Amino acid sequence: MHNFEIKPITKDTNILIVGLGVIGGGYARALSRQGYRVRCITKNQADIDYALGLGMIESGTTEVDPALIGDADLVVFALYPHVFLEWIRAHQSLFKPGALITDVTGVKGSVVNAVQGMLREDVEFIAAHPMAGRERSGVEYSDDSVFQGANFIVTPTERNTPAAIAVARQLGEILGFARISELTPQKHDEMIAFLSQLTHCIAVTLMTCSNKPSLEEYTGDSFRDLTRIAKINDEMWSELFLLNRDELLREMDSFIAEFGRFRYMLAMNDREGMRETMRASTARRAMFDKPKADADGTPNP
Amino acid sequence: MHNFEIKPITKDTNILIVGLGVIGGGYARALSRQGYRVRCITKNQADIDYALGLGMIESGTTEVDPALIGDADLVVFALYPHVFLEWIRAHQSLFKPGALITDVTGVKGSVVNAVQGMLREDVEFIAAHPMAGRERSGVEYSDDSVFQGANFIVTPTERNTPAAIAVARQLGEILGFARISELTPQKHDEMIAFLSQLTHCIAVTLMTCSNKPSLEEYTGDSFRDLTRIAKINDEMWSELFLLNRDELLREMDSFIAEFGRFRYMLAMNDREGMRETMRASTARRAMFDKPKADADGTPNP
Repeated sequence: MHNFEIKPITKDTNILIVGLGVIGGGYARALSRQGYRVRCITKNQADIDYALGLGMIESGTTEVDPALIGDADLVVFALYPHVFLEWIRAHQSLFKPGALITDVTGVKGSVVNAVQGMLREDVEFIAAHPMAGRERSGVEYSDDSVFQGANFIVTPTERNTPAAIAVARQLGEILGFARISELTPQKHDEMIAFLSQLTHCIAVTLMTCSNKPSLEEYTGDSFRDLTRIAKINDEMWSELFLLNRDELLREMDSFIAEFGRFRYMLAMNDREGMRETMRASTARRAMFDKPKADADGTPNP
Repeated sequence: MHNFEIKPITKDTNILIVGLGVIGGGYARALSRQGYRVRCITKNQADIDYALGLGMIESGTTEVDPALIGDADLVVFALYPHVFLEWIRAHQSLFKPGALITDVTGVKGSVVNAVQGMLREDVEFIAAHPMAGRERSGVEYSDDSVFQGANFIVTPTERNTPAAIAVARQLGEILGFARISELTPQKHDEMIAFLSQLTHCIAVTLMTCSNKPSLEEYTGDSFRDLTRIAKINDEMWSELFLLNRDELLREMDSFIAEFGRFRYMLAMNDREGMRETMRASTARRAMFDKPKADADGTPNP
C-alpha cells in the first residue's frame, strides 16, 4: 500500500481521458454535462474537433503532452488492451505523483496484473469495466444514455486502496450506471467469458455456419436478436478472446456438451427429456429479466 | 384438382377460427376490426367471453358445433399440430362442401402431407405459417400488431389450386403481414430448422449449460437478447422439434462443426483466422438488418 492520498472526484479534479472512442466519448459526455473538467488525448484531431464542438471536453490533443498528463488527477484509459499496456510502459513517467489511473477494458486478469506489475509506486491503478454495448466504434457513436440500466464492475486487487476503490465506484455513479459492484479480476473474467464472450462466439457461428441463400427474406425477430452482436469489431474482440482464452474455451466446452445432450434427446425422440430441459430453461431465464425501473428511474431490484 | 370454386375473402365470408390462443386471437382481432365475420371454436368458455367482450368474434362455442362448422367458408386451425390432425380425422365430415381450410403450424412437411392425405375431396387445405413471435400463450396475449413487419409464408403443394393459394395470400395481406411468400413445405422446414428451431435450441442451451450463481447481476443486453426465447412453451416446441427432427439435427450438426472450427482457432491462437471469420459474420449479418419502414409504414426493401 502506498502512502499518498487518493481523493474523491470533485468539480476541481482534472480528468484526462486517453482514447476518445465510443466508450471514452460516453465518459466525456456524461462528465462534462455535469460540470466536471475533462480533457483528452486521442489519435485523430477530427475526433477532438467533434468533441469540442459538442462541449464534451475542455481541450484535447493528439500528442502525448507532458503538461496535460502531469496535470491530471484521474486518467481514464479507453484503449485496446495492448495499446493501453504499451502506453503505460512508454509514458508512465509523465503521470503526476499521486494520480489515479483507471480503464474500461473488457478483460481484467492479464491486464490488471500487467499494469499493476509495472506501474510506478506513487501512482495507483484501479480497474473497472463499464458493461455497456458497443456494436459501433468511434466517438460519434458514443452515447452515455447506454450506461443507464447497465452494470459497472470494479475489479480491485490486494494492491488497491479503499480510497481508490471508492473513487472508481464514485465514477460509475457519476456516469449513471444502474448497478456498481466489485469482483476479483479472475471472477470478472469467468463471468465475462460466459455472459459476453461465449454469446459473441455463438452469434458469429450462427452467421457463418450456413450459406443458404435468401434466408434473410424469412428472418424473424428471434434470429435477429441472436445475431445482433454478430456485427463485431474483429480487431477488439479477437484481442479480448485471446486475453481470456482459457476461460472462454472452458465455457465453449460446457456449451458444446450441453448442446450435445439436447441433440441426443432429440435424436432419441426423448420428448420428456427435452420438455424438462425447456422447463429448466424457462425457470432460469425468468431470473434474468431486466429489473423494471421505478417512475423516478431508480432500478427496482 | 377438384372442381369446386374457391372464392376470395369478402365481408360475407364466414370465417371460423379453431383454437383461440395467442395466434388465433391475433387473427380474430385483425379480421374483426376490419369488419370480417369471425366465429370461433375453442376449449375454454372464458376465452370466448374475453374475445366477445373485446369484439374480436361474432360468436363462439366450446363445442364441435355442426351448424357452425357447416356454415364456414374458411376455417383457420390454430392448434398444436397433433390436436389439429386429430380434429381433422374426427370431424372433417362436418365441413361445408367447397370449404377452404388453412392453419398456422410452424412445421409443414409432415402436417401438410397428413392433412392433405386424409382430407375429403370436396374440401381444400392450403397451409400457411405466420412467422410472428409467441413467447406467451393465451388469447389475452394475442396482438395482431406483431404481424406488421413479419413474414407470412404459404406452403402450397401440387394438390393446391391457384385460387386457394391466392386466398391464403389475401389472408396474409388482410392480417397486415409485411412480406407474403411461397415455399414448398420441404424448403419451409429447412428454413425454419435453421432460423427458428436452431436458435431456440441455442437459447435453451445457454440457459442450462451453466449454473453459476449470481450471473443475472452482471447480465448485459447481449445475453438477454440471446436468451429472450429461452422462455419457451415446452409442450409446443418439443412437438415442433420432433416433427422436424431430421432437418433440425442437420442444422445442429452444422452449427456444432462451425463452432468447433472457431474454438480450434482460439485454442491455436489463430488471431487472423478468428478475425477473418468475424469479418465474414459482420458482412453477412448486414444482409439481415430489418428493412427500414418508410414514413407511411411501407417497408423499404
